[in-house]
Amino acid sequence: MKIAILPGDGIGTEIVAEAVKVLNVLDLKFETETALVGGAAYEAHGHPLPESTLKLAKESDAILFGAVGDWKYDKLDRPLRPEQAILGLRKNLGLFANFRPAICYEQLVGASSLKPELIAGLDILIIRELTGDIYFGQPRGRRTAVDGHFPGAEEAFDTMRYSRPEVERIAHVAFQAARKRSKRVTSVDKANVLETFQFWKDIMIEVGQQYPDVELDHMYVDNAAMQLVKAPKKFDVVVTGNMFGDILSDEAAMLTGSIGMLPSASLNSSNQGLYEPSHGSAPDIAGKGIANPLATILSAAMMLRFSLNQAEAADRIESAVQSVLAAGLRTVDIYSEGTTKVSTREMGDAVVAAI
Amino acid sequence: MKIAILPGDGIGTEIVAEAVKVLNVLDLKFETETALVGGAAYEAHGHPLPESTLKLAKESDAILFGAVGDWKYDKLDRPLRPEQAILGLRKNLGLFANFRPAICYEQLVGASSLKPELIAGLDILIIRELTGDIYFGQPRGRRTAVDGHFPGAEEAFDTMRYSRPEVERIAHVAFQAARKRSKRVTSVDKANVLETFQFWKDIMIEVGQQYPDVELDHMYVDNAAMQLVKAPKKFDVVVTGNMFGDILSDEAAMLTGSIGMLPSASLNSSNQGLYEPSHGSAPDIAGKGIANPLATILSAAMMLRFSLNQAEAADRIESAVQSVLAAGLRTVDIYSEGTTKVSTREMGDAVVAAI
Ligand SMILES: CC(C)[C@H](C(=O)O)[C@@H](O)C(=O)O
Ligand SMILES: CC(C)[C@H](C(=O)O)[C@@H](O)C(=O)O
Repeated sequence: MKIAILPGDGIGTEIVAEAVKVLNVLDLKFETETALVGGAAYEAHGHPLPESTLKLAKESDAILFGAVGDWKYDKLDRPLRPEQAILGLRKNLGLFANFRPAICYEQLVGASSLKPELIAGLDILIIRELTGDIYFGQPRGRRTAVDGHFPGAEEAFDTMRYSRPEVERIAHVAFQAARKRSKRVTSVDKANVLETFQFWKDIMIEVGQQYPDVELDHMYVDNAAMQLVKAPKKFDVVVTGNMFGDILSDEAAMLTGSIGMLPSASLNSSNQGLYEPSHGSAPDIAGKGIANPLATILSAAMMLRFSLNQAEAADRIESAVQSVLAAGLRTVDIYSEGTTKVSTREMGDAVVAAI
Repeated sequence: MKIAILPGDGIGTEIVAEAVKVLNVLDLKFETETALVGGAAYEAHGHPLPESTLKLAKESDAILFGAVGDWKYDKLDRPLRPEQAILGLRKNLGLFANFRPAICYEQLVGASSLKPELIAGLDILIIRELTGDIYFGQPRGRRTAVDGHFPGAEEAFDTMRYSRPEVERIAHVAFQAARKRSKRVTSVDKANVLETFQFWKDIMIEVGQQYPDVELDHMYVDNAAMQLVKAPKKFDVVVTGNMFGDILSDEAAMLTGSIGMLPSASLNSSNQGLYEPSHGSAPDIAGKGIANPLATILSAAMMLRFSLNQAEAADRIESAVQSVLAAGLRTVDIYSEGTTKVSTREMGDAVVAAI
């Protein structure tokens, strides 16, 4: 088993170091290799996803990813910006199934913007399609408009598109995930406006017939954005496209108040996967040793479960995280009165000790 | 002055009737003409936006719109569904500038999902571009994929596009609105992924140079969906495209807890406008006389201000609404202990009396 370690930028190196420390005490057999990605790779090699990093990622069974990005790269041409690394990895490895749990940790209910009764106990799984949609659709670019409201004017355009097999495979992922949970899937679309999402909805219904034990409903994306605010606990598994999933998974993550705690997984059809925290690179606090490593540590647990077939080891990490929370340890982002403030490293050490 | 009255479906007729009652006591000179739209028009004329309704809308200075839609039309072909009427009106009248205030009414703070300290006093103005983007971009449809992940497979596609003049005019609307408020504009884009929104961002910056007194910042749509939850009061004027605006304006409306109270305006370049409540047709409570008419009454006030040049009459309506709220009158959607529950008609009568 081989794990590619890609810490990236900002707090990435600090949080990934703690996750690696945790992996190392589990007494599992795996090889690791570390490489630069994002802004750090751009500085060293002139590209956010150098060939060597991509090669390592492809050869590995799983990738543990920190975060990429920094304001200082904002002026670079788009293909050189740090976030292109993550788009490039998704595309080149075919990581089409993004699992974004939105969980409200019992001890962190107070950190949510929502009233406690609306958020306590929340446990949603958002499944976002990750290699299709308007993110990768061609053609795209700038040109002179030949029709529309202002023919002759300069315009920019992108193409939203989904093919049948792309929708089918993410549908199967969602229905299968729902079978292991409460057997309900909400498919989020905009079928009232978009051809792409009428197609999406039709295929969800078709595939759903193979899962008669799973209840399927449909919601427009604008309504989903509202219902997440109004009654998030009504959702269980949510499946949606790349663009809507980007927005809704972040909205849901922030609603929980536990964003420093939320892992994510991006899988391809051979269960090769990229694992990363749901939060970003936070350049403002990088190097201060105060970032919360738990989302990355929990991403490592997802990695063990999904890509490395080590469910038991994953359980051990997750229980250890529960126990450090129960013991009152908190990094500054989740600190509240009556708890104990700890650094990134102290949090990692506490998880190691709990294991 | 001519006002087209288009009540539509569901609770549309009930709430529009109250707004018309309010307009009638103001002693202004205007002519009204009522027409069918949405499902009601489909039943009578076989089309959600009959020629006669469109003609009336075009000839009028303003349109007071209720709501359209009902589950029973879900099986119709897309071009015949009720919501096509609203898309058709936007397109045919060129109603490109959508004003969606997200206000938390002092008396309704408790109705929000958010903790009171985060939401009390909220007053955001979301300006959504309404006739461009992926809503209307051609080409769109189904075809056999010639490239992408599955060449040869069936696929569906849509085109996102914005031309320079389309972005420029909505930018001017936003900067001018900001001048009357706190002089801050947040432009929401996804420039890190989409050509269309890199173009959007570039033009926002260019147009912004003509408004040196207004502060402009930029936020990715996923981050905006999060910041609305985390710290909504940090926003003032938000400007964004049609698709992102659809999602964010609804998210913000629901966050306020005051969704039964929120009006909207959709204007073209001659200040002809369509005015409608932010909420939908609520077929489940239609005909029961319990719907909240205040969003529609406040939409009528926006109409007086924006399209009919009657700012003083608009003020009178808005103060009257404030005073019925202060008097404790509440329709069921905003009812809480210690207030007085009233029907749709009683609420309308109370506003009339307060005027
Ligand atoms: C960095 C960006 C390209 C990326 C996306 O939009 O997918 C990020 O927001 C995410 O959700 O992983
Ligand atoms: C009904 C639908 C087409 C419409 C939209 O998506 O614009 C609605 O959601 C709105 O926001 O007015």
